Amino acid sequence: MPSIAKLGHVAMVTKDIDKSLWFWRDVIGLDEVGNDGETVFLRAWGEFEHHSLSLTEGPESRIDHIGWRCGAAEDVGAYAALIEESGIAVTHVDGDTQTGHGDAIRFTAPGAFPYEFYFEVDKPHLNGERTSRLKNQSGKPHHHGISPRRIDHVNMRAADVKGFEDWHNDFLGFKTREYITMPDGTVLGTWQSVTTLVHDVAIVLDPDGRDGQFHHVAFYLDNWQDILRAMDILSEHEIKPDLGPGRHGISQAFFCYVTDPGSGIRVELFSGGYQIFDPDWEPIEWKLSEADYGVTYWGADYVIGELPAMDRTVTC
Amino acid sequence: MPSIAKLGHVAMVTKDIDKSLWFWRDVIGLDEVGNDGETVFLRAWGEFEHHSLSLTEGPESRIDHIGWRCGAAEDVGAYAALIEESGIAVTHVDGDTQTGHGDAIRFTAPGAFPYEFYFEVDKPHLNGERTSRLKNQSGKPHHHGISPRRIDHVNMRAADVKGFEDWHNDFLGFKTREYITMPDGTVLGTWQSVTTLVHDVAIVLDPDGRDGQFHHVAFYLDNWQDILRAMDILSEHEIKPDLGPGRHGISQAFFCYVTDPGSGIRVELFSGGYQIFDPDWEPIEWKLSEADYGVTYWGADYVIGELPAMDRTVTC
Amino acid sequence: MPSIAKLGHVAMVTKDIDKSLWFWRDVIGLDEVGNDGETVFLRAWGEFEHHSLSLTEGPESRIDHIGWRCGAAEDVGAYAALIEESGIAVTHVDGDTQTGHGDAIRFTAPGAFPYEFYFEVDKPHLNGERTSRLKNQSGKPHHHGISPRRIDHVNMRAADVKGFEDWHNDFLGFKTREYITMPDGTVLGTWQSVTTLVHDVAIVLDPDGRDGQFHHVAFYLDNWQDILRAMDILSEHEIKPDLGPGRHGISQAFFCYVTDPGSGIRVELFSGGYQIFDPDWEPIEWKLSEADYGVTYWGADYVIGELPAMDRTVTC
Amino acid sequence: MPSIAKLGHVAMVTKDIDKSLWFWRDVIGLDEVGNDGETVFLRAWGEFEHHSLSLTEGPESRIDHIGWRCGAAEDVGAYAALIEESGIAVTHVDGDTQTGHGDAIRFTAPGAFPYEFYFEVDKPHLNGERTSRLKNQSGKPHHHGISPRRIDHVNMRAADVKGFEDWHNDFLGFKTREYITMPDGTVLGTWQSVTTLVHDVAIVLDPDGRDGQFHHVAFYLDNWQDILRAMDILSEHEIKPDLGPGRHGISQAFFCYVTDPGSGIRVELFSGGYQIFDPDWEPIEWKLSEADYGVTYWGADYVIGELPAMDRTVTC
Repeated sequence: MPSIAKLGHVAMVTKDIDKSLWFWRDVIGLDEVGNDGETVFLRAWGEFEHHSLSLTEGPESRIDHIGWRCGAAEDVGAYAALIEESGIAVTHVDGDTQTGHGDAIRFTAPGAFPYEFYFEVDKPHLNGERTSRLKNQSGKPHHHGISPRRIDHVNMRAADVKGFEDWHNDFLGFKTREYITMPDGTVLGTWQSVTTLVHDVAIVLDPDGRDGQFHHVAFYLDNWQDILRAMDILSEHEIKPDLGPGRHGISQAFFCYVTDPGSGIRVELFSGGYQIFDPDWEPIEWKLSEADYGVTYWGADYVIGELPAMDRTVTC
Repeated sequence: MPSIAKLGHVAMVTKDIDKSLWFWRDVIGLDEVGNDGETVFLRAWGEFEHHSLSLTEGPESRIDHIGWRCGAAEDVGAYAALIEESGIAVTHVDGDTQTGHGDAIRFTAPGAFPYEFYFEVDKPHLNGERTSRLKNQSGKPHHHGISPRRIDHVNMRAADVKGFEDWHNDFLGFKTREYITMPDGTVLGTWQSVTTLVHDVAIVLDPDGRDGQFHHVAFYLDNWQDILRAMDILSEHEIKPDLGPGRHGISQAFFCYVTDPGSGIRVELFSGGYQIFDPDWEPIEWKLSEADYGVTYWGADYVIGELPAMDRTVTC
Repeated sequence: MPSIAKLGHVAMVTKDIDKSLWFWRDVIGLDEVGNDGETVFLRAWGEFEHHSLSLTEGPESRIDHIGWRCGAAEDVGAYAALIEESGIAVTHVDGDTQTGHGDAIRFTAPGAFPYEFYFEVDKPHLNGERTSRLKNQSGKPHHHGISPRRIDHVNMRAADVKGFEDWHNDFLGFKTREYITMPDGTVLGTWQSVTTLVHDVAIVLDPDGRDGQFHHVAFYLDNWQDILRAMDILSEHEIKPDLGPGRHGISQAFFCYVTDPGSGIRVELFSGGYQIFDPDWEPIEWKLSEADYGVTYWGADYVIGELPAMDRTVTC
Repeated sequence: MPSIAKLGHVAMVTKDIDKSLWFWRDVIGLDEVGNDGETVFLRAWGEFEHHSLSLTEGPESRIDHIGWRCGAAEDVGAYAALIEESGIAVTHVDGDTQTGHGDAIRFTAPGAFPYEFYFEVDKPHLNGERTSRLKNQSGKPHHHGISPRRIDHVNMRAADVKGFEDWHNDFLGFKTREYITMPDGTVLGTWQSVTTLVHDVAIVLDPDGRDGQFHHVAFYLDNWQDILRAMDILSEHEIKPDLGPGRHGISQAFFCYVTDPGSGIRVELFSGGYQIFDPDWEPIEWKLSEADYGVTYWGADYVIGELPAMDRTVTC
């Protein structure tokens, strides 16, 4: 069976690329690593692919696609076959037309999410002032802005959480790590991973019953304190976070959520969490009655449908 | 002119001394340093007086008094004379009847706050497992619970903020460091100190026009991270903070507010802030229109009168 | 091919079990989770197996075995066959005779290291004051002592680093992540993992040409600041660390090394590091000339053979 | 009696102003706030005077003077009279010839240290991108480099520690807070302050019996973690610290010492420490036998005369 190795990148379309660039590059502190005239590519200093974020201007902000790196070169084709067999149309993308990675496939996953799978990548070769002395890092940390280490996960909202979750597990090889159930058994949210992270992807019920809603992409910082420093930096830039700082019980994340003013796309600044190395992990169920501290171990409360800043999504 | 050297202690009366002791000793992590059968005395590990908090059981929770240590032995008497001259009754307290300090005076300050002034103190001589290797600390840090370093300030609510503020400055030698004004010029809140701290005392307008309302006592922790660790500890003890973590613009405090479930008295866990060494400090005015980020530089918003958990006070 | 899922536990024999228990339980802050009269079992609060450390008294301190949890039940037997085929004797251990895990195999790996492989484990079911509110943790953090989250890796010294490294990779499925080479090409040290951690095991050349030398077991803490707090706690217990705090370039670890005074076995308190999710990771070579900041990105210098406190090992 | 309010600034002469500017502005992260063609003035973001550091090029690196801000305008003249009376020559400096402060006096204090006293200062009025939203800060934190908050103290070496200490206390109004004595009673080092800080100045015995040796100026950072981040930044700039990170018992400082490659003048990056609010503080004596953990509570050991990197001084 083919496998996914990791979340690779999120390709964003933004209504205001100048404001988005200011946000992601200058405030969040990603490095601009390429610009083909239409699309700007950005990377965090601790990443080993060409980019983890791209920004293209367009009439409406949206997620163009979510890129997943496969576990082996042959997995891209193997997934293409499996997915087509299941009745989902697959588009083949020639690596020559792409910046930063090789041949890829694209398709719309259940829940209306645009996925891209690829394996070959251009590995970063930084020169000059952005090169770290550390041979195991692609760039220099603490260079400017908030300066996260790497992309961590994506969080989406859909109408049928369980359906999307099962497809992730059955077709793509994800494992459910934690989930919330409502009294009638409906799955309200699920945290799934292909790695040892608690989640590479989370899916939460859309309160309006829509599919294809992108809630946030997360970037990882090494220390909780780095997120407090980020709060200062956001405030000095007169950016008001959507929520945080606080700590989730589920995933154990120390978090701050903040929205790119250019695109309306949200980022979670994320530190901590935990790793699952045990092969026989039993998914942890949080009943709705426990979800209060499951969602908010501490920090400002968040209930879906009650905090407009956190409920905004961008359609894929 | 006599002077106050520092905030010394807060003497609390609690309806439920067992629950209060659990909170202040086991959760907050103060050391129990004395118990005369009626009153329990507690101290943080970085303090140089006998105690900074006392708990006595009583029918209603209240603040018995707020203890201020004077700058010199003769200042106690000098203050007594000054205060009596101004028409406020002063009670003399014999040191032999006190635990931890010598002769004192007590009086009700404008705004209906019970103050105690003293100079002589019993200095801590810990023995055994609580003694630090550091000769410049009275106790061992990190021993149990949240483990703050020292008492920092008190925050009260009164009907006439400006009146109380002026009396503090004119009679006691405080300096106003920062303050908030409403469009009509009324002072909404003031932060005052006798030390280089931004505030040893803050006074905020009581929304119900009452005097003698005690809002919180603050304890200082060395690092912001210590407050995040405190959040974990509070959550594990199923204690929900009133507000935080967050950062004030005024005072620059990184904070968490949490209420003793025994007495209903609130404590601010406080780190950071800044020092004022300049002798010609001009008090910083925050207009109400700026008070949003003055009060909440980041973290959950707080507006007086809109957050019941934070608006509860205890009458002195 | 069978797989190893993770490092499980280190079984220690100590000359002075009282002093070792004081160190690992009271100072390091592991929880004592079992005691069969002869052996004491300990676990960190964020672990999902029965224990990660055991202490048995004996005439000489040594490592009894290093326990690795396999990826599936059938892998234990599959490894047994493979290893026996390669000419290494394998002992079968009945799970009924074990505390905390099921049937296992034991054998002496190249380099004279006693390994144990198993799959079935007793999962923690804590009750009472040590149970976390978080359903995704087995215990309560911050309870006492330094309080690390989980076991992280082991570090051993051997005469033939490359030989042991190759066997790990070829027979057990490890991947080399980083390594140091001397001018003549000899491998001085190697960092290998089966997980996404940079290393589950490190092997370094023994300066005296011995095999079977155990250098340290590492425990992971969530934040760098937690290690600074640990430094305070160690100093208050009059324990002088062997090295630290400092940061390695290789593995990017923020570290402190300290030795159990009972057994002479060293622990690394470890935070930070990085994760390798990319499937085509090319092992990073550090030439000896680069090894100065590879070993010490910052903090006190360490050169093998020049710091007696760090060079002491315990024979397996 | 006149008083000193605080340490104001250190005026440095450097052999290589370009390298010094790179170090203090770009790496340490002070803001360049003035440049009169000959001298460059720098300030940290949390300071309320015009500058805390100045750099002037010269044939030999040295300290031109150490500037102390007096408690009141009239104190400058009062000190002039007192000091002249004691037989020390005083030079009057016209404020019109100075950048950032008004009329001043200069003299050579016992121990051959060039002191400047002044009161009037130009207060910072930043505009544009460096202005903080916080009205109680002069600049924006986290803007570039290590970004300390404020100047903290100076540390000098002299032949007669006790003589200099006494003169500080008797003539200038300092208080001794902590000190180290040798078996014969000689004072090896002393920590003195006019503020509530443990030390605004420290004086340590010069191992070569010289006077007028400047050891370091310290800058304060809010959190211990900020110093760990500084270690990363220094290492990425290929600057090897002289010592650290570590923690002193005396003063309780969490520290890193690092030398400006342009001038050879050392800076201590300093966080933590403690405050002395008690008016009857008894100076804490550390006997030489206790000085090991008094000097190094934890971190790399430092003994005067045994660590060349830390023993280098610059002559005033």
